[in-house]
Amino acid sequence: MPQLGLLPRKAWVALLSQILRPPHAACPRAVRFHSQVSRTESSRLLQQGLQVAEAVLTSQLKPNQEKSNFIIKTPKGTRDLSPQQMVVREKILDTVVSCFKRHGAKGLDTPAFELKETLTEKYGEESVLIYDLKDQGGELLSLRYDLTVPFARYLAMNKVKKMKCYHVGKVWRRESPTIAQGRYREFCQCDFDIAGEFDPMIPDAECLKIMCEILSGLQLGDFLIKVNDRRIVDGMFAACGVPESKFRAICSSIDKLDKMSWKDVRHEMVTKKSLAPEVADRIGDYVQRHGGVSLVEQLFQDPRLSQNKQVLEGLGDLKLLFEYLTLFGIAEKISFDLSLARGLDYYTGVIYEAVLLQTPNQAGKDSLSMGSVAAGGRYDGLVGMFDPKGHKVPCVGLSIGVERIFSIVEQRMKVFGEKVRTTETQVFVATPQKNFLQERLKLIAELWDAGIKAELLYKNNPKLLTQLHYCENMGIPLVVIIGEQEMKEGVIKLRSVASREEVAIKREHLVGEIQKRLSDS
Amino acid sequence: MPQLGLLPRKAWVALLSQILRPPHAACPRAVRFHSQVSRTESSRLLQQGLQVAEAVLTSQLKPNQEKSNFIIKTPKGTRDLSPQQMVVREKILDTVVSCFKRHGAKGLDTPAFELKETLTEKYGEESVLIYDLKDQGGELLSLRYDLTVPFARYLAMNKVKKMKCYHVGKVWRRESPTIAQGRYREFCQCDFDIAGEFDPMIPDAECLKIMCEILSGLQLGDFLIKVNDRRIVDGMFAACGVPESKFRAICSSIDKLDKMSWKDVRHEMVTKKSLAPEVADRIGDYVQRHGGVSLVEQLFQDPRLSQNKQVLEGLGDLKLLFEYLTLFGIAEKISFDLSLARGLDYYTGVIYEAVLLQTPNQAGKDSLSMGSVAAGGRYDGLVGMFDPKGHKVPCVGLSIGVERIFSIVEQRMKVFGEKVRTTETQVFVATPQKNFLQERLKLIAELWDAGIKAELLYKNNPKLLTQLHYCENMGIPLVVIIGEQEMKEGVIKLRSVASREEVAIKREHLVGEIQKRLSDS
Repeated sequence: MPQLGLLPRKAWVALLSQILRPPHAACPRAVRFHSQVSRTESSRLLQQGLQVAEAVLTSQLKPNQEKSNFIIKTPKGTRDLSPQQMVVREKILDTVVSCFKRHGAKGLDTPAFELKETLTEKYGEESVLIYDLKDQGGELLSLRYDLTVPFARYLAMNKVKKMKCYHVGKVWRRESPTIAQGRYREFCQCDFDIAGEFDPMIPDAECLKIMCEILSGLQLGDFLIKVNDRRIVDGMFAACGVPESKFRAICSSIDKLDKMSWKDVRHEMVTKKSLAPEVADRIGDYVQRHGGVSLVEQLFQDPRLSQNKQVLEGLGDLKLLFEYLTLFGIAEKISFDLSLARGLDYYTGVIYEAVLLQTPNQAGKDSLSMGSVAAGGRYDGLVGMFDPKGHKVPCVGLSIGVERIFSIVEQRMKVFGEKVRTTETQVFVATPQKNFLQERLKLIAELWDAGIKAELLYKNNPKLLTQLHYCENMGIPLVVIIGEQEMKEGVIKLRSVASREEVAIKREHLVGEIQKRLSDS
Repeated sequence: MPQLGLLPRKAWVALLSQILRPPHAACPRAVRFHSQVSRTESSRLLQQGLQVAEAVLTSQLKPNQEKSNFIIKTPKGTRDLSPQQMVVREKILDTVVSCFKRHGAKGLDTPAFELKETLTEKYGEESVLIYDLKDQGGELLSLRYDLTVPFARYLAMNKVKKMKCYHVGKVWRRESPTIAQGRYREFCQCDFDIAGEFDPMIPDAECLKIMCEILSGLQLGDFLIKVNDRRIVDGMFAACGVPESKFRAICSSIDKLDKMSWKDVRHEMVTKKSLAPEVADRIGDYVQRHGGVSLVEQLFQDPRLSQNKQVLEGLGDLKLLFEYLTLFGIAEKISFDLSLARGLDYYTGVIYEAVLLQTPNQAGKDSLSMGSVAAGGRYDGLVGMFDPKGHKVPCVGLSIGVERIFSIVEQRMKVFGEKVRTTETQVFVATPQKNFLQERLKLIAELWDAGIKAELLYKNNPKLLTQLHYCENMGIPLVVIIGEQEMKEGVIKLRSVASREEVAIKREHLVGEIQKRLSDS
């Protein structure tokens, strides 16, 4: 039998790399082997590998062992929306989509999953949060992580050079969910994007106007939109002495400034990302500054930044942007904020993020606790990444985080004790008598066929009181009552649930009378 | 260094089971090891294992090697919906959801994926079509296969005993896609369900009424709803001599009768599912029968079937159902069809499936080519499968297959050359002059703030003709024109794109005038 040392090196590498792969590593190729692995080293690696293999096996056995005490639940970080919640979400989506349509956007829809490769190298450090599908044969697939990359893929695939559109759908991220803060692993995004070659900053300004209209329309309380420019971020890094290879990594750290203190972010940059402390401090000087157009003017004079071409381009565009925002009447909602970096790789120009200054009835609490409720920016290179010839289509867009907004609206409704109707039923078909199911069914079919929203109880002989209680509980405004007496006289009673008034109406006039009452109310 | 034989057996098993796991096996536990593995056997297994390991590594490397010739596409069996298609789909969903609301349904939403165990043992032979997510640590998840199982899980989880609701969302099935027939791997379903203990057949009849209203409302041409009862199917199997263990398998075969001839289905039952030929022939006698309520009466007299308790229950309910369908005025749309079996495991009572008799402008072609466009049935046991104590909540529901309906509507629009507007823009802000961007931006913000749907070109100095052409192409009805002359006079020109008429309006009256014109039209 073969000793370990007698195995061909290639086989040995294959063997070990299979074993040593950590349970859920993204890719076994991450494990590197030196061309000369010593025998002792091999043995140590094998022992270590076996431990890993055992751990893998144990963890994989767990689900089956647990089968007997299977708990009914939704997957971690996801939730159902109950009828009450659906009413709230529909209202939010209505406000958002109406605004998008007000700005001339067309609709678009893309599949929930994409080829895995479509998503690679688009999200920087966040890539680890992508959900992959199991390889069941055929293509390797991943659930979409946002709606921006699928949109860019759509443009490139269909060679669309110009388009203003909106895109509403669920996206999935394997984040550690903090459900209290409205952070989920499955959540709904509403995106608006403008693709095409245009004069500078006009579409960008419209995106910010849209964010303001939506946040005002949803009545979420006071908000602020932080604005920066990726070129200013990168130029500032360069000017402060960050090596170019570390730009994206440092950018990700800066992006955490809304959740972490500068001290912690600095610590991460210096220890985890090996940035020189003096470089970190230079960055620290800048990222703690924010203001209006005057900060733009001030940085034009900054001795370090004003030497950097990228920074100057960014500042020039921001100046123009502020001019347009003033014309739109929203300049006071916008703050030029050097701490805004946006973690995603694909941004190339203006970036922005809306935060609520305080959620209603939460005055005094940390104003940043909800995180951003809307964000976006310019991504001029993303479409080109999909085009075989690299043809670019400049894009700018925004994304509304419905889930967080939902949490706020829901909480507010609880506080105010607001009640919502979960159905739209207008008329209830009732009877005080037994054996009237046939008449009730004939009557309700007539109402449905006339487009009237109607219900009855699915019982052969319900009590009249039960039927009337149902209407009161469900907020149904009208009841038609049919009984023997009415049948004889060729009439039907129409009752208003609120006033309890009843009138007799000729059977053939019933539909017309109901429609008249409903259009009056 | 250790020889292979010196490794502890447990470690050796762990090692080999890691290696021997076939590239995409569902579970490494499928590999069994005897307690006494001989040394020669070990060596052979290891060699074999290494080959597998190499194959795994090679296959995992492939995606990267192929990167250079990566083709931009959506995953197999999925598609984007372009703005034109979105308009069509929204129209279909509107018709469907309005009907659900007309019948008093509340909204519900569930996550795109469920715990894998939630979906097991619900779909019979179709289970192989479920998409699993990759195990990236944590729970084992699968994409939902329909909306019925998540709905039942919702009821059980929240201990809801009574509910009438609708549920619209995407579901995923790893089918061999035939896109020409409107079959996809990702598709949108619209479900309506009634849960609760009620008097028999009233909710069932309402489900059929809803299917009729929707199919009529969508103007898809003539249609027929096939009806049967799972108890009649099972009772017929028993009466014909099918062993009980083969009920579900034979049911799946029968379910293919809409796509395969009886001869082929019989062949499958006899050869693949080892059914005795004489039993198959007995079934064949029945499944080729269909008709109205008279067939129900006829089967009550059938010497074989009338001996079976289940069949009698099913026939009794169908008789009552036909009575209600007559009251609803839809009995002539319904065909009692013994070939209808429905493949899914969870049905327990009435089942139904709507087929278009011929798609518009396709007279003469095979009337069944589109498959079913809507289907459903009664599933009284599904909720109980999730309840720890097995408490049942009887349910009946239906599902509208939006994708197939979409294909038909889209085709019809192509035939009729119907054009759709993809935006809702009402007003375009134009100028004949240079350097008027600021005025245009101020003006359009005023329109947006008044809720008017407005657009402008993202150019500093667009040509007037370009602007007017844009309006004509996009079907925008009104243009406001602002220039130096108008500025001086304090007016704005309002132009109707269709009539090309222009009137001057005082600037302060503009919003009011536009709103008046839009509400008049």
